[in-house]
Amino acid sequence: MTKSVNVAIIGSGVVGGAFLGQLKNLKSSIKYNVVYLAKTSTEALYSKSYEPVDLSNWSTAATQATLSLDELVKFLKAGSKPSILVDNTSSVAIADYYPTFIKEGISIATPNKKAFSSDLSVWKEIFSNAELPHAGLVYHEATVGAALPLIGPLRDLITTGDKVEKIEGIFSGTLSYIFNEFSTTEKSDVKFSDVVKVAKKLGYTEPDPRDDLNGLDVARKVTILARISGLEVQSPTSFPVDSLIPKQLEGIQSAAEFLEKLPLYDDDIQKVKDEAFAEGKVLRFVGQVDLKSNKVSVGIGKYAFDHPFASLKGSDNVVSIKTERYVNPLIIQGAGAGAEITAHGVLADTIKIAERIAN
Amino acid sequence: MTKSVNVAIIGSGVVGGAFLGQLKNLKSSIKYNVVYLAKTSTEALYSKSYEPVDLSNWSTAATQATLSLDELVKFLKAGSKPSILVDNTSSVAIADYYPTFIKEGISIATPNKKAFSSDLSVWKEIFSNAELPHAGLVYHEATVGAALPLIGPLRDLITTGDKVEKIEGIFSGTLSYIFNEFSTTEKSDVKFSDVVKVAKKLGYTEPDPRDDLNGLDVARKVTILARISGLEVQSPTSFPVDSLIPKQLEGIQSAAEFLEKLPLYDDDIQKVKDEAFAEGKVLRFVGQVDLKSNKVSVGIGKYAFDHPFASLKGSDNVVSIKTERYVNPLIIQGAGAGAEITAHGVLADTIKIAERIAN
Ligand SMILES: NC(=O)c1ccc[n+]([C@@H]2O[C@H](COP(=O)([O-])OP(=O)(O)OC[C@H]3O[C@@H](n4cnc5c(N)ncnc54)[C@H](OP(=O)(O)O)[C@@H]3O)[C@@H](O)[C@H]2O)c1
Ligand SMILES: NC(=O)c1ccc[n+]([C@@H]2O[C@H](COP(=O)([O-])OP(=O)(O)OC[C@H]3O[C@@H](n4cnc5c(N)ncnc54)[C@H](OP(=O)(O)O)[C@@H]3O)[C@@H](O)[C@H]2O)c1
Repeated sequence: MTKSVNVAIIGSGVVGGAFLGQLKNLKSSIKYNVVYLAKTSTEALYSKSYEPVDLSNWSTAATQATLSLDELVKFLKAGSKPSILVDNTSSVAIADYYPTFIKEGISIATPNKKAFSSDLSVWKEIFSNAELPHAGLVYHEATVGAALPLIGPLRDLITTGDKVEKIEGIFSGTLSYIFNEFSTTEKSDVKFSDVVKVAKKLGYTEPDPRDDLNGLDVARKVTILARISGLEVQSPTSFPVDSLIPKQLEGIQSAAEFLEKLPLYDDDIQKVKDEAFAEGKVLRFVGQVDLKSNKVSVGIGKYAFDHPFASLKGSDNVVSIKTERYVNPLIIQGAGAGAEITAHGVLADTIKIAERIAN
Repeated sequence: MTKSVNVAIIGSGVVGGAFLGQLKNLKSSIKYNVVYLAKTSTEALYSKSYEPVDLSNWSTAATQATLSLDELVKFLKAGSKPSILVDNTSSVAIADYYPTFIKEGISIATPNKKAFSSDLSVWKEIFSNAELPHAGLVYHEATVGAALPLIGPLRDLITTGDKVEKIEGIFSGTLSYIFNEFSTTEKSDVKFSDVVKVAKKLGYTEPDPRDDLNGLDVARKVTILARISGLEVQSPTSFPVDSLIPKQLEGIQSAAEFLEKLPLYDDDIQKVKDEAFAEGKVLRFVGQVDLKSNKVSVGIGKYAFDHPFASLKGSDNVVSIKTERYVNPLIIQGAGAGAEITAHGVLADTIKIAERIAN
């Protein structure tokens, strides 16, 4: 009577760990058999007899070597149940394998942006394979804005015949924090380089803050939204991305040296901020998809004090979606990162898949 | 090879008409057979052989008498396919029949609030029947905020273990418009009764504006969100609802007389507005669910000029959801009414059901 699915989970880091905790406590009429759990790239829990992994002691249980992705496909296909791959890594190797999983009937739930934001050919292969008979399903809500309801609602709009006109948003929690502190509706003289240093100290940035400041993560997210909206973006480097790394500092090796020299360029960005302030505007680091001009871009934008982007708090993300139907844009705002928040986005996707395929 | 579902649609008014247009143009690998279409309470299109209704000429095709709800259940059950009832009416009679449809394995997609916001017993019967073996599914995203992604994301949060702490929002497009015009961040002397009259002239209100001003529609929506969040609200009249109809005008018969006398009470609400303005706040008509104090309420609230509710435009809805995970609330804003917008919410639900049950 009870329906069930087999689940293979890869990764037990920040998101993966929270995902396992939520799955353990899930109350559901569907049974989720975790038949494979790769804790890291080298250690995994599974049994040849598909005995479900005990989620109450996964962190301490004895492990085996991980399966290769080829072996994993075979293992899941040989199980007696429909199966879901939950990829909680940022691995490119796993992402590149999505088309195969899907073609082989294995569904995917993931917060890993790589597959969806790399070369257009990967995107096309994933979604054309997903239309093959008996293909797996693909859900990736948490690849943009963590669990904020973006990708699902955007797909719903398009499927039902709406046309996206413009998407713009603040997609990086780190850059949200930095600009919310740096550029406010009250006059302030806080220095850009100081805000970056505080952000690093608070653990808001990547270990090397340049990995946030270069805008590539934002470009990846914008690439995903643009493609869903119907723009065939070739790659996240095929459109203008205004890096916040001053040109003159591009050659620098260490993060420490970079942070030491950053104050030399405070005046440049301060000038931009002061000009905006004089117009009654704040600066925000945004990604934009314009379906009228077919343009995608990432960089600093100016927003009036009463614009929703101007009143953003902390490290929140915000996205504004203007369509033929939503003349006043649909606006979605909230935390775009965090272990539990991201994990629940992945788990909600896993549940949606299970509700469609469990038997 | 192609999967399909049988669909019965009731109602072809504002939402129903747009729904039929969108369904006609839907590109899908699932086939939607509209085996029954009740254009109105008296006229229907269907054939005993389950021949799908031609959606390109439904408005002019010859009709038959509608089936009773009993007959409709029998008709759908005797079909060879899983079936979905799309209720695009505001009928209480149909709503009261949901538990039967669901028990009989017929799924429901609807923007009709009635079933979900009436007596708690109906709600309980619907969702306990939905857990029976072979029961139908229930999707009702468009019952609150039209197609704004609210009910789905809220259920996702709760299913995955989050706890709602507070929901507050502006759930009436009409009252959103009225308060956005009446109470602004710039000093204004516009009269409340004048704004109500303009709203009526623009077609934003019900034919009798008291049906908006009494707050009951907001109370119904708040009832739904409270119940999803785990509060067993008995009915939409079991908690405080601050009607905007002055006490002294409650006995009045006609809408015309009401509008004529409304200016007599402009000073009262102007005073509240001026007091709020002195504190740097605007007035908004909000619904609130507080899971800490287990209290639900509907009425005028005061919001600081930089609060997202203060910068709302036109007749948009906005909802703020604070949870254990979303410490900064999740905020969702956009049109909460309109033919195409509401219809796409219902169609997206219909698709989600079909993806789960089509065969
Ligand atoms: N953290 C957030 O707030 C957030 C928000 C939105 C999206 N995301 C996305 O969620 C994903 C996970 O992020 P995270 O913060 O949880 O990262 P993380 O803490 O670095 O965890 C990654 C985990 O994946 C494992 N892993 C990597 N490659 C593997 C492989 N080939 N086979 C098996 N295990 C492998 C790692 O193990 P090793 O130590 O062996 O490499 C580690 O356990 C990323 O794609 C990220 O972009 C995260
Ligand atoms: N309009 C919006 O923007 C909006 C937004 C959110 C939610 N909604 C909800 O969507 C639903 C439909 O709204 P609407 O604006 O489309 O209403 P509407 O224009 O009044 O249309 C209602 C339709 O349902 C038909 N109907 C009523 N009872 C029936 C019955 N027992 N059997 C068969 N047909 C019946 C009506 O036909 P008769 O003429 O014979 O009664 C009419 O065709 C309502 O529940 C409303 O609250 C609407």
